[in-house]
Formats: sequence, C-alpha cells, structure tokens
Amino acid sequence: MQLQLKTWQFVEEYLKSRTGIIIPIGSTEQHGPTGLIGTDALTAEMIGRGVGEKVGALVAPTIPVGMAQHHLAFPGSMTVRPSTLIALIRDQVMSLARHGFTRFYFINGHGGNVATVTASFSEIYAERSMERLSNQPSIKCVLRNWWESAGIKSLSRELYGNAEGSHATPSEVALTWYGYPQTMQQKPMEPRIAPTGGFADAEDYRRNFPDGRIGSDPNLATPEHGKRIYETAVADVARDYEAWVSR
Amino acid sequence: MQLQLKTWQFVEEYLKSRTGIIIPIGSTEQHGPTGLIGTDALTAEMIGRGVGEKVGALVAPTIPVGMAQHHLAFPGSMTVRPSTLIALIRDQVMSLARHGFTRFYFINGHGGNVATVTASFSEIYAERSMERLSNQPSIKCVLRNWWESAGIKSLSRELYGNAEGSHATPSEVALTWYGYPQTMQQKPMEPRIAPTGGFADAEDYRRNFPDGRIGSDPNLATPEHGKRIYETAVADVARDYEAWVSR
Amino acid sequence: MQLQLKTWQFVEEYLKSRTGIIIPIGSTEQHGPTGLIGTDALTAEMIGRGVGEKVGALVAPTIPVGMAQHHLAFPGSMTVRPSTLIALIRDQVMSLARHGFTRFYFINGHGGNVATVTASFSEIYAERSMERLSNQPSIKCVLRNWWESAGIKSLSRELYGNAEGSHATPSEVALTWYGYPQTMQQKPMEPRIAPTGGFADAEDYRRNFPDGRIGSDPNLATPEHGKRIYETAVADVARDYEAWVSR
Amino acid sequence: MQLQLKTWQFVEEYLKSRTGIIIPIGSTEQHGPTGLIGTDALTAEMIGRGVGEKVGALVAPTIPVGMAQHHLAFPGSMTVRPSTLIALIRDQVMSLARHGFTRFYFINGHGGNVATVTASFSEIYAERSMERLSNQPSIKCVLRNWWESAGIKSLSRELYGNAEGSHATPSEVALTWYGYPQTMQQKPMEPRIAPTGGFADAEDYRRNFPDGRIGSDPNLATPEHGKRIYETAVADVARDYEAWVSR
Amino acid sequence: MQLQLKTWQFVEEYLKSRTGIIIPIGSTEQHGPTGLIGTDALTAEMIGRGVGEKVGALVAPTIPVGMAQHHLAFPGSMTVRPSTLIALIRDQVMSLARHGFTRFYFINGHGGNVATVTASFSEIYAERSMERLSNQPSIKCVLRNWWESAGIKSLSRELYGNAEGSHATPSEVALTWYGYPQTMQQKPMEPRIAPTGGFADAEDYRRNFPDGRIGSDPNLATPEHGKRIYETAVADVARDYEAWVSR
Amino acid sequence: MQLQLKTWQFVEEYLKSRTGIIIPIGSTEQHGPTGLIGTDALTAEMIGRGVGEKVGALVAPTIPVGMAQHHLAFPGSMTVRPSTLIALIRDQVMSLARHGFTRFYFINGHGGNVATVTASFSEIYAERSMERLSNQPSIKCVLRNWWESAGIKSLSRELYGNAEGSHATPSEVALTWYGYPQTMQQKPMEPRIAPTGGFADAEDYRRNFPDGRIGSDPNLATPEHGKRIYETAVADVARDYEAWVSR
Repeated sequence: MQLQLKTWQFVEEYLKSRTGIIIPIGSTEQHGPTGLIGTDALTAEMIGRGVGEKVGALVAPTIPVGMAQHHLAFPGSMTVRPSTLIALIRDQVMSLARHGFTRFYFINGHGGNVATVTASFSEIYAERSMERLSNQPSIKCVLRNWWESAGIKSLSRELYGNAEGSHATPSEVALTWYGYPQTMQQKPMEPRIAPTGGFADAEDYRRNFPDGRIGSDPNLATPEHGKRIYETAVADVARDYEAWVSR
Repeated sequence: MQLQLKTWQFVEEYLKSRTGIIIPIGSTEQHGPTGLIGTDALTAEMIGRGVGEKVGALVAPTIPVGMAQHHLAFPGSMTVRPSTLIALIRDQVMSLARHGFTRFYFINGHGGNVATVTASFSEIYAERSMERLSNQPSIKCVLRNWWESAGIKSLSRELYGNAEGSHATPSEVALTWYGYPQTMQQKPMEPRIAPTGGFADAEDYRRNFPDGRIGSDPNLATPEHGKRIYETAVADVARDYEAWVSR
Repeated sequence: MQLQLKTWQFVEEYLKSRTGIIIPIGSTEQHGPTGLIGTDALTAEMIGRGVGEKVGALVAPTIPVGMAQHHLAFPGSMTVRPSTLIALIRDQVMSLARHGFTRFYFINGHGGNVATVTASFSEIYAERSMERLSNQPSIKCVLRNWWESAGIKSLSRELYGNAEGSHATPSEVALTWYGYPQTMQQKPMEPRIAPTGGFADAEDYRRNFPDGRIGSDPNLATPEHGKRIYETAVADVARDYEAWVSR
Repeated sequence: MQLQLKTWQFVEEYLKSRTGIIIPIGSTEQHGPTGLIGTDALTAEMIGRGVGEKVGALVAPTIPVGMAQHHLAFPGSMTVRPSTLIALIRDQVMSLARHGFTRFYFINGHGGNVATVTASFSEIYAERSMERLSNQPSIKCVLRNWWESAGIKSLSRELYGNAEGSHATPSEVALTWYGYPQTMQQKPMEPRIAPTGGFADAEDYRRNFPDGRIGSDPNLATPEHGKRIYETAVADVARDYEAWVSR
Repeated sequence: MQLQLKTWQFVEEYLKSRTGIIIPIGSTEQHGPTGLIGTDALTAEMIGRGVGEKVGALVAPTIPVGMAQHHLAFPGSMTVRPSTLIALIRDQVMSLARHGFTRFYFINGHGGNVATVTASFSEIYAERSMERLSNQPSIKCVLRNWWESAGIKSLSRELYGNAEGSHATPSEVALTWYGYPQTMQQKPMEPRIAPTGGFADAEDYRRNFPDGRIGSDPNLATPEHGKRIYETAVADVARDYEAWVSR
Repeated sequence: MQLQLKTWQFVEEYLKSRTGIIIPIGSTEQHGPTGLIGTDALTAEMIGRGVGEKVGALVAPTIPVGMAQHHLAFPGSMTVRPSTLIALIRDQVMSLARHGFTRFYFINGHGGNVATVTASFSEIYAERSMERLSNQPSIKCVLRNWWESAGIKSLSRELYGNAEGSHATPSEVALTWYGYPQTMQQKPMEPRIAPTGGFADAEDYRRNFPDGRIGSDPNLATPEHGKRIYETAVADVARDYEAWVSR
C-alpha cells in the first residue's frame, strides 16, 4: 500500500475508514567497509512496506536523508541539519493532516534521527498548543526504531551476541543483504569487533572509529539471518502499529 | 550506481577520477484519476538510475516530496514549502561537496519544483559569493526536466499530439506503467482532454481542474509507449550529463 | 498612480472598485562597462509606472535589490539571498492582502529574480493551501519580464539582432538612457559582442565574463531606441495586465 | 552620486579612496488624511541624495518598505516583519562589505524602523563577534533619523511648536510637498491637533488615532517650509556623515 | 510572587482578577575588572522581584542571556543573536498570552537589549496586524530600563556625578553588592574614569575599552548606595507598572 | 562558582587550566496541584550549583524556559518551540566556545527537553562537520538528567516505589521543598497515584492528566527526603562530570 503507487481517489476512499499512515525514515551514511550507505533508509523502507501490506495501511515515501552529521568524515555520507529536518517533517505531516490523516507512524532506521524527529513532533504540536484549540481533531505522531522491538532484540542477541554493536551492525547488514543480495560482500576487518564509545562531530567520530563501525562485526551477517530479521521486525512493528492507531 | 547501494570506500575511490553526482527529485501529488501519486518521483528515479548506469555516475537518493502546494486539495498530495526545500537541497549539496563532489546534476520529474530548486542553487552560490573565495573548487548545480529533451518532446508529440497536456500527461503515465505495470488502470474521464489554464493556491487549482488533470488525456498511454519514452529520456539525459560534467 | 504618492483614504476608495496592484522588482548589479548598476530596477520602475498610468492601477514601491549573487565579483553589486527575498515578498504581499488587494502583478527587470520570485509566490500560496480555506478571497500573484513581450522581442531583434545578448543588453541600456540621459556613455569593448555561456557563483561568473556583459554589444544602444522600447513595453505589459486582472 | 546611476568601474575607482556609503531607509504607510503613504521613504531618499551630492558619497537604493505593522489598519500601508528586515539589511550590508565598503550610514525616515534596524546591525556584528577575527577590516553601521538633528529640531519648533507631533508631522509633510509639489492638498481635520499616546498592534493604533495622525497638525505645512527643512537636514546630516566616516 | 514558586492553580486564580506579568531580562557579560558577569540579569531580577512583591504581580523567570555581541572579546561574556532573542521572546509571550495574560512588562538590566527586545514586540504585534483581528483581546508589551527612572537618574547623579558612565557603572555595581555582598571587591583602575565613545563589534569594543568599562568609576560604589538604589528603583518601577497596566 | 558572580578576569584565569562549564536547563510548567511551576529549573539549578562547588567548575546561568508545549493547557506554563531552543543553545554554546570553553555539560531538570537539546548539539556539530576542519579544538556537549543517576534511581525507589511516576514526582517535589521550604503544601489528590500514559499536544495532555500529574503521588514528599535527594544527585553528577571532562 505505497502512497506513491495509489491515486488520489484511492486515498479519498481510504480516509473514510482509516486515518493512520506509515512514514519510513532513514539516513544516507557510511556503514563500515561493507555496509551500504543507504542501509538505514533501505531497512526502514523494507520494513515499512512490509508492515503496510500486513496491516493495510498506506506508506508514505521514505525520507532517505536524515541527521547524520557525525558520519561526514566518510565519503558519500549525507546529512540535513536538525533545523532543516524539523521543517521537512513539519511540512510533510501538515500536508497529510490537511487531508484528514491524524496518526503518523514513523518507522526509523537510524539512531541519529531519534532526537531530531522527536523534536519535530514537538514543533508540530507546539503550533497547536500555543493556540487555544477547541474542536480540532487530535494529531499524533510516534517514532519506532525497528531494531528495538522485543523480538529483534532477542533475535540479534541470539545471532550475534556482543558482536551486534551499534553501528554497521550485523543485523542491519543482514537485512540489506536479504533485500539487496547483489550487494553482499565480506572484507577482513581489524579489529574483528569494532571499538565502542561516544562521539561529537565528524572529525571526532572518525578519530574514534577509523573504519566507521561501532562495536560490531558485520562479517557475521548472512542473507538468511536477514530474512528472519525482516519477518520478525515486520511482525513486531505491525502489532505495535495496530495497537497504537486504535488507541 | 546508486549511492545507497555502495560503501564509503567505493565512493572514496570514485572521487579520485570523477566529481559529478546525479540527484533525482520528484513530487508526491495527485496525477488525475488514474495517475500515481508518486509519478514525478518514480519517473525521475527511473531515469536517474538509467542515466547513472549508462554514464557510470553515482546516483543519490531521490528527493521524493517536492513543492506541490497547488495539489493539496486532492487527498494524498504532499508538499514542502519553498523555504524548506531550499534548506534541504542546500544541506544535501553541502554534505556531498565536503567529500569533493563539485557537479550536482538534478534530474527533475515535476514542473512545480523548477523555481524553488533553481532558487536553492542560488542560495548555495550566494553563501560562496558573499565571501571572497580565492582558491576553493568551483561548485556547480544544474536542473534538467526529463520531459524537455528534444527527443522526448518529439516523441510525445508523435504519440499524443495535443493530448499530452501538462499535468497527468500520457507520457508520464506511460512511463510509470512501464516501470510499475501492476498499477495500470484506465477510467473514463470527462472531458476526454482536460482543460488548460493557470492556477494559484490549492483551492484555485481544484476549482479549475476538478479531476486533477491539466490539458491531458492519460488514457492514451500504454506500457509500450513507456518503454520508448524511458529509453529516449535516458539516452538524451545521459548525453546531456556527459557534456555538462566535462565542461 | 504611485502608492507612495497617495493617501490611505485614496487607497480605501480605490479598493472599492479594483483589487489589483503593480509591484516593480529589479536588481542592483553591474551591467558591463557602461550600463548602470541600477538598470534592472530603473527599467522595471519606468515601465511599472507607465503601465500604472495607462491602466489606472496603483504601483507599489519598487523592490530595488534582487537576487544577484552571481554579480558580486563586480564592485557595487548587491544581493539578497533567495530565502531573504522570499520572506520580503511574502510580507509585502500579505500586508497588501490584508487591505483587500487580491491581484499582485510583479513587473520584473532582472532574469536572476525569476526563480526566487516564483518560489516566493508558492511560499505565499502554501500557507493557504496547507490549511483548509473555505470562503477566503483568492489571492493571485504573477511575474512578467518586460523584455519578453512579443513586441519587445521583435523590436530588439530588429534593432540589435544577435548583439542583444542576455546581460547588459543594448535594449536595457537604451531604456535607461531614455530615462536617465545624463548617464549615457560609450566605451570601446573587447570583444565587441561579449561571450555567452552559463555561470554558477560570483567567481565563476567573472571568470567567464570579465567585463560583466553576456552576449551583448551595448554600444549599439541609443536614447531614441530607448523611447521606442519604453513605449512598446508599456503598451504590451498594460494589455497583459488588463487581461490578467480581469480573469 | 546614486549607486544606481553608476557603473561597476566607477565604484571600483571610488573604493580606492573612500569606503563609506549612504543607505536611505523609509517606510510605506499611512500619514494621515493628506500625508503621502511614501512620506518616510521619499524624505529619507531626498535627504540621502542631497547629502551624497554634498559630501561626494555613494548612495545605495532606498529601502522603501520598513517596519510598520502598527499602520496596517489603514489601507495601503505595508510592512515587513522585524525578522525579515534584519535578514534584508544583513544581506545588503554583507554584499557591499565584500567589495570593500566598511562604513554604512543609514538615513532613516521612520521612527518605527529604529529598533529593528539597530537590531540588524547587532545581527551583522554578532556573526563577526562569535568568531575570533584577527585582521579583518572593521565594519561599522550607524542609523541617523533626519528629524533629530539639532537644526531640524529647532526649525520645527519654530515653525510648528507643539503642533509638530510625532506622526504625519507638518515637517515631513512640508518636505514631501517641496519634493512632490503636485501632491499638495489640505483637508479639515478634527481635532486640529491630533491626540497623542502609545500603541501596540494595528487595531490598537487605529482605535487610538482614528485618522492616522499622532499629535500633529499637518495643515500647517507649506512647500516653502519644506525647502528650509530640506536644506537644514542636508546640511546637518552631511556634517554628521563626514565626522562619522572620518573616525 | 515569582511564577516559578507558584502552582498552576494559583495562576488560574490570579488570572481571574489580573492579566499583567513582569518579565526581568538581563545579560551575561563582562562588567569591568570588578563588576559581575551577571550584573544585568541580577539587577533586573532583584528589582523585578521587588516590584512584584510591592504590586502583587507575578514575575516570570528572568531571561539571563541577552544581546551582548559587543562584549564577546572578554572571557565569560555570552550572547544570543537578535534573531534568536526575537524568537525566544515571541514564544514566551505567546505561551503566556494563551492563558489570558495580556500585559507584559519587561524590566531590563542591559542597554544592549533595548533595540532587539523592542523589535521582538513588533514581531509579536506584526503576526496579529497582518491578519484582520476583530474581537481578540489586545496584547501589549513594554520595556523599562530600571536605571532610567527619574529617581534613579537623580540618585546616581547625586552619588557619582560624571563618574557614573554607561557600562560597569557604580550604580549597577552597588546594586549587585547590596544583593550579593560576598562578591564585593575593589581594584585600582587606570584611568580612574574609563573612556567613553561608541563601538561596533567585539574587537572594536575591546580596542576602545581595554578593561571593559565605559565612562565609569565603579570603585565609588558601596553596598549602602546599593540599598538606596534598590529601594528607589523598586518604588519608581512599581509606580510605573501600576500606571501602565491600568491603562 | 556561578559565572554570573565572577568577573571576566576570573574567567580568563580559569580558562588557563580548565575548559569545562556546567549549564543547568529546566522548564517553567505546571507540576500538579502542589508542585512549583519552576520545579525543573529550580532543581537543575540547585544541583548544577552544588556540582559546580564540588568540582570547582563554572556554572552558566540556568536556561529557565524549555520545551514544554504539552503543558500549555495549564495556566502559567511557558514554552519555547524546538526550533527556538536549538537557536538559543547554539548561540550560548558558540559564545562560550569563542573564549576557549570546549566541554559543555548540561544538567537537565525536564524530560521534555531531552530530544530538543540533543538535536541542538547536532545542530552545533553539523556546522563544523559540514566544513573540513583540520586543527580546530574539539567541542563536546552532553546532557545529563539528574534523576537518572544510579543513586537517585535507587533512592527514589526506596522512598516512593511505584508512586514516583514521571511528572510532578515526589522526588522533584521533595527537592524543591528542601530548597524552597516556604513553598511546601499538601492537598488531597484524586486518585492518590495519578494515571500514566502518553500524550501529544496540550489538549491531549490535559484530557489524559486532568490535574497535571503523571503516575505520581507528590504528597509522599518531605523536605528531609529532598535533602537526601540533593546530596545524592550532587555526588553522582559531580562524579560523572569529572569523568566526562577528563576524557
């Protein structure tokens, strides 16, 4: 149920019975020596579309570039500033709200988006809260990170244990190999499990994580894992979506 | 050569010999009773990827939501404000420029984007022009509308004559049916060829163009046309890209 | 009928029968070795006032500084960034709309303004389109480049042929000499007809067009030409204005 | 010495010996039953040009629309928001600073501009102050209200005493009649001297000052007064300009 | 009556009979060799709270960082840009206006805030003025500099004569010593009375005023003076507040 | 070691050996029937100052108004929009960075600030990351919620168990009673432990939490608890500060 593949008359009909919509959001940034630059957008999109099919919800186009300033010391990484992303999300939500959508469910593929996307929801709400609104329909937005569902957490622990890490993880790499098998490749990495730690700006990040990974061993990934991860994520997120929109 | 499907090390290597990149930009908006809401993004993306393959250029993620305020009276249409789109493009270009990209070739699927995208280039240049810059590399951006190449103009005239129109055109509809054959559908439309004229805001647009089309008869489209249009557009735009980056 | 030379009571009366207003917009930028820095503002203003007299329309103050980042490598050139110009036009139009003006006719003297001014109209419309507006009066804005009317195109072809060019053109120079005869001067220029081509930022522009002209030979201009150009432009634009506001 | 009437080569030469420039700024707003909507821009421009001639300084184009939100309940009044005016002035000053101008002397015709223009100077300085700048040339901006010179204060007291008031004053009306004699008109006004007091937004202003004047009797003005005011203002401001730029 | 020390139910009750609120605003910037960096915020806060007690008005939290770009060449000084401060004040006032507050009385401790705070009021009013508002309650904002009341002017003249100056004044220093006696210190300063003059950006300020003071001799201050200044300021400002809110 | 109570010469000296600074940030919003509107700012400030004393670090002025749009249906609550707060924090950090501060440790009193403050750090970093910076000192910002230290979590569990809740908690109420004993009051509340759940805008919040509390029973608080909470928080946060700045 991709919005892009529907007509306006279809949407008009849809809105008679449902007002929820799914919005995948990712990032375009380095994912270590073998991970795809599009990993976070591709995974959010795959899961978003899977959930949309399962629950019969419309899926808006994926927001492909997110807040990834810390990856800019690696070629090919792209970012928008937080203030830009807030404006973008605000406009997209307000466009859809005009038609009668009231529940905006963001499926997120990138940890670095969480703060800014959450702030963008507050920006949207603040416009409403600063006026006295009596009888307007209530708008609600929520952000879900697909890798944080109970099922995914347990599965990645089972598959990768402490080599999952937090960037260029085997889980997300496996997922992209399931979706884009032609991109699969392995390379020796040193150390096998990347270091962990914090970071500030792009120079700081690259100093701490020279090949881009954080705490992970992506060579553990397989396309078969990717299939299990995909199915688990879709099932978990679909359940959550249905619970949330019915509230 | 989708950027999303490459690694940062691939991009590092690429930049040693080339500094151009293709950025498809579209829109998410009604396209008449049978045209897809994603038409402008899907067509720009198809052609952008085709050109990228042909010329060996990287293709950044498609910007899927453009400036489409005038379509907002039709359910499912989305827009960003011009000021938001300017910030978005500025950030995306500046991210890539940091890595050494210097030629930004936007392939556009939506007439309503032209003014704002062109203004965003000026916003980027103005930051540079307001400082005295001596020895910085020169950054250049260009926008090409795929439907305006000589080959496409002649082909659409041959196929549809004066039923091509300017919104929900048979050309763009045919192109989406070639790429997404499962979405093909026909409906009777009244009048067969939609009215033409101007518009201002969304209410004004819908008043003038009740089913969303402008000057077009999309029922003339076929997937076979779509294939010809695709191949012509890719060939024309690829030639233009190569001429432009080598300047 | 300059707004600046009227009282508020005059405007109150005017609005009882008409809701259109003319807004000249120009630029303050180099125009080659002999052209005036104010050319684009002065010509838009001359024609705007001429049209206002002819059709009995109010003429707002000229916006004298436009989007001219590409001229900043030549002393005296001024610019506003696109984002600033969008805010400026938005505020000026919204001020006038509050009084009941509904048709905003911009007469433009500078090609570099086209994209940004058009984007500013979309910014204004977007505010309206993103809300459901039922019974508000319809606001419309339009931009006309005086040098693109049929009469002017034919006249400049007759007078200057392929030496018209696109910046520091003999047409605009002639027009300023008609309006400001004391500024007339000629200088030898090398080559006689300036080169043509594209440009990006200010450094790029100056590299390509060392004396500021593009494709033109301004030494062909005469004040007598300027008079003919003025009268043709006023007649053409006045006709267009009347057709447009009555729609 | 209007910048608009010069060439870029003239400006290049000028900058070899001088780096000051005059920028008139006014407003477009009601000035009572007989005062011109353009009063504040026209007077600033007249005096700015007079000063420019006297001291041999370049005069940039007049900024014709200022911060006049409080006049918007009177037809024909225009405003820009403070945030817009700050961006506008910032861009115009930074454009000129790129060429080597370092002293920006604003001649102001409108009390309502003072706070915002002063804030815009701080915005410009703040960009510099937030960086450590070692050897950049020092940029300075100043705002002068022509009606506050000692000579003008004394002259208006002599001519109008307590009927000068603070909006639609006989001084400014006289000045416009000197410059634009064809606009002269008188009307009975009730009370003869308008009330005084404060105001907040446009509704509040109109409630307090029903015909637009504050504290003034513009019927006292004559074109002859206007000539004396003009000459006094030009002399006073020219002296101040010369003292300021030489500091 | 600090807002911070009350409950929402208290405020609900308060609004039944009064709609005024006091907002202290200061700055965080150098105040010479012995003056506190927080002087302007601390003094505005002391007086604001004193006035609140005296007149029974709520006092909002002090805005501690103001527009102080010119002090940034002295360690510890902080600033917000004018555009930021305008947004901040706009949001704070609009938040309170939503509850029914209509009179916003800013007590200011810093001359450098005056232009920007005044511009922020216009920004707030402009949002209202650009719409036709019929029956909304009238919002009014005012800014009072505590050091400009008649009583304070006369007292500082009596105590310090021409050694009061305009930055790091003995009056403000005395006031902080009354409120924060533990911070009292004296140091020899050369010259005893600091120079006077103007300034632009931070480098320019420090060049002209090497130890930070302007025209003042803060060594004249005593805590006893501070007590007199405090009591005079509170009495004067309280009287002004009561007159203003009852208008 | 409050920055407000120091001189610029003190700060100059401080920067020779240390480059860290503490910035308390709170909120001004309802805290249930008995909690103070200033709770979040007052608690962050108390703990911030306590930590500053303990570790010998400078403490910047508290940012008293945060992102609290969801509380605006309760009188007295104030908010700034996320985009405003981002600009504010950016300016304050950049001011201090100019002097040589490189470690910015925000002590936070309000859960609703987390997303926006984190986004503001990214905004600051993004300015740096979008340029290639070679040898600039590294700037780092961090946000710590005082109530999330191990010691505080264990203490609040011991004192209040499941009646701690998440808004108007007995922990924060106790802390304010320790700091501001005169504000102590108890009121019967129904239900004793407030409901829990989510919220979107202000109307939604008030609908779900009619007296403002979430999940808490603030009547359990005592000033003695407040003292223990204060001491635990200061000890925990001080330890964390020292570890962080030394990294």
